[in-house]
Amino acid sequence: MTERSALRAEAETANAAFYAAFESADLDAMQELWLEDADTLCVHPGALPVRGTGAINRSWALIMANTPYIQFFLTDVEVSVLENVASVTCTENVLTADERTGPDAFGGARAVATNVFVRTPAGWRLWIHHASPVLSADHDDA
Amino acid sequence: MTERSALRAEAETANAAFYAAFESADLDAMQELWLEDADTLCVHPGALPVRGTGAINRSWALIMANTPYIQFFLTDVEVSVLENVASVTCTENVLTADERTGPDAFGGARAVATNVFVRTPAGWRLWIHHASPVLSADHDDA
Repeated sequence: MTERSALRAEAETANAAFYAAFESADLDAMQELWLEDADTLCVHPGALPVRGTGAINRSWALIMANTPYIQFFLTDVEVSVLENVASVTCTENVLTADERTGPDAFGGARAVATNVFVRTPAGWRLWIHHASPVLSADHDDA
Repeated sequence: MTERSALRAEAETANAAFYAAFESADLDAMQELWLEDADTLCVHPGALPVRGTGAINRSWALIMANTPYIQFFLTDVEVSVLENVASVTCTENVLTADERTGPDAFGGARAVATNVFVRTPAGWRLWIHHASPVLSADHDDA
């Protein structure tokens, strides 16, 4: 495996850890994945940006507290590494339940995410997570 | 001006050039702003990702051809520089007209964009543009 493909594999693993933390509502694991930085950025689907790791952690706490169940099926995962920065883009196919749905009802949705990771001595850490709802199929895989 | 703040200013200038190219429907200027790379990524609001500079150029040609008028008022512009990579995030307050509206009617919309630039010998070039519609005010400036 070349160094570049090894780095891509590492970034993809970090990306999978991000979704695993969200699925298991593991706020500690989620916090661990982010850079400790005022310049980190998180855009939840349809929302305005949340900036800075403190505010981002609070946004995840709120989301996790209000999401009894969520599961991601990632498709079209593409990794691009440029020096110490990696971007992972993917389509998030989401199964979820919230307070408005009963335990047997699930909503499905699709979002596109750009996750930008930075390589640190402790491993790859999130700098940017930007997720957006998919409203049209204009630019589908064609 | 420190080197870091000079780099931030350069990235902000590149970001402004991106919106100027879109506003003036200048496809050549838009193409010039992107890295020549198969790993570039462009997410138009509500759409699936477009990957690779060739496909991205074609998407801009299509959008420009179908947008008689567009004007951006950027707010909350934040620049973060990490080695040779800069992220510029901003809220796009959009005035636009399309084929369905007459010349005197304008639609207004709001989107959030993450624009990631890479420093090259020729200047800062776009690696990632991810724009998403703002559907809620959950994470407003508060």
